[in-house]
Amino acid sequence: MSTEWEKPIIDDIRTVESEMLRNVKSRHPLLNEIAMEAVSVGGKRIRPGVSLLAFHCVGGEDKDRIIKLAVALELIHSATLVHDDINDKAEMRRGKTAIYKKYGLERAIITGDFLFVQGFKLGGYMESEEIIGFVASACSNMAESEFLQIDEEHDISTPLETYLNIIGGKTAGAIEASARLGAYIGGGSPEEINSLGEYGRNMGYAFQIIDDILDITGNEADMGKPVGMDIKDGRPNLPVMIAMNLGNEFISKIFKEKSPSDEEIKEAVRLVKDSGALDVARNHAQDFYNKALESIENIASSVYKDSLISLADTIMTRRS
Amino acid sequence: MSTEWEKPIIDDIRTVESEMLRNVKSRHPLLNEIAMEAVSVGGKRIRPGVSLLAFHCVGGEDKDRIIKLAVALELIHSATLVHDDINDKAEMRRGKTAIYKKYGLERAIITGDFLFVQGFKLGGYMESEEIIGFVASACSNMAESEFLQIDEEHDISTPLETYLNIIGGKTAGAIEASARLGAYIGGGSPEEINSLGEYGRNMGYAFQIIDDILDITGNEADMGKPVGMDIKDGRPNLPVMIAMNLGNEFISKIFKEKSPSDEEIKEAVRLVKDSGALDVARNHAQDFYNKALESIENIASSVYKDSLISLADTIMTRRS
Repeated sequence: MSTEWEKPIIDDIRTVESEMLRNVKSRHPLLNEIAMEAVSVGGKRIRPGVSLLAFHCVGGEDKDRIIKLAVALELIHSATLVHDDINDKAEMRRGKTAIYKKYGLERAIITGDFLFVQGFKLGGYMESEEIIGFVASACSNMAESEFLQIDEEHDISTPLETYLNIIGGKTAGAIEASARLGAYIGGGSPEEINSLGEYGRNMGYAFQIIDDILDITGNEADMGKPVGMDIKDGRPNLPVMIAMNLGNEFISKIFKEKSPSDEEIKEAVRLVKDSGALDVARNHAQDFYNKALESIENIASSVYKDSLISLADTIMTRRS
Repeated sequence: MSTEWEKPIIDDIRTVESEMLRNVKSRHPLLNEIAMEAVSVGGKRIRPGVSLLAFHCVGGEDKDRIIKLAVALELIHSATLVHDDINDKAEMRRGKTAIYKKYGLERAIITGDFLFVQGFKLGGYMESEEIIGFVASACSNMAESEFLQIDEEHDISTPLETYLNIIGGKTAGAIEASARLGAYIGGGSPEEINSLGEYGRNMGYAFQIIDDILDITGNEADMGKPVGMDIKDGRPNLPVMIAMNLGNEFISKIFKEKSPSDEEIKEAVRLVKDSGALDVARNHAQDFYNKALESIENIASSVYKDSLISLADTIMTRRS
């Protein structure tokens, strides 16, 4: 299923997907099966999409190189998803049973490691200290943000700044890296690389805030997973934080609990909806969306730039 | 504490250790602490030792490069140990509480990923497709062997060939890669690289078989962990396999059990000792030791070659 924003690069996205599958082949049939499954459920392909669009926006020509990089980044992303599901105790991902639930903890940890290795192998083949350093630094930031997120679990007074630090490393940093590296490999000027990087970072913030909102407003069928999971696990979620900040004590009580009941979660979700916090959170996302589009004002017009704008719209209006 | 075999390279080993610590610095204090702990309990430094000795055996000169590689390999090794302990449900490593037991599953998974990234970053900085490909392939083999090992859990009739495949990928492959890459970076001829690689591979087999023997004969104080763990977890262990193959039904019964009692494990350990299986296993290790030393017969004499021989002796006579 292709969406509007992907149109000018749809063939490249398909190449990235087939290259991912080719790069996770293993002689062990079950490792092969799990690795294929992990890279197939990867979803929206936003990161490789952003890399490819940024590359084309600056007039990039060496397509093999950008595809190799996009495959590397998406393999690393798939590795983190397999490990994240363990850490988030997620039962489902995109309507499918999470890997560790289906194949067990041991195999999930090893498959994640295997995907990391395949990703870094391709990244290493880029033979550029700058690229490797940038990818590695995005990955380190991700690890630090995950530690920060654990620190904040069940904390009812996480400051907005800490929340932005967490999602900055966890989500925005990876999308920024995808954009920045795409523009770099495409031969963009320092200004172009910066502008596209800023686009990626701001769209990353918006993406995560919309994700948080969907954890409250989404429906299970569209999402492929239950709602209210952040409340259940006491994970920082912007509308929930805002609602608690407005003084809603029932939400705070549930957010602090280690094992709230389904009924309690449902009631807390309802109260977040009624609190007005969703509009405030959506305004934050809108601010980041605006900043993202402002960032690329100086980028020359092209179908690829139109796609970046269309991708931003898709992220803001998505329902899953 | 330095041992005989390390003497000619002890300064380099210390540099590797301090570089490892320098390369796992994080802004998050707890991630920093756990990563430092993970690389500090790393133990015998056999892999970097073998890399450095192989490098010097072929007259290598660019020491910065071999140290960078040794640090990369040992960081990746540390990452696998943190994840392995989770998978092996190990409570202790070298007398210390395993990372995931002390800091929790989530932080252990993330710290392992962080160490992987730091290792691959340094490996990527080598800017050589051959080196990166070789490291990545050793890591993939490791993942495949771990899958194979899970397949064989509690299986009382694992063939010797399958056992060798498992320990080939899990242990021998990494030591072979360390030797081969050390010789390659040192500018060794294809024959020298091959000979030192064969030394590493065969010493790796011997190392793992001795490890299996120590899981039966060791004492908890020396080992820093309880004995009989392979029987408890039903993991392929050469003397245990041999004893079961000799027809000892009590051992087979316990090996098949998911949760044998401490008394049952103790009795099975006693029966393995009485079966004569330890001598047969030790003969296998001795064969690999002999092959390892034969492999390097054509390598020119030097203090470094003497150290490789001394390392082999240390591995065969170690008590922990």
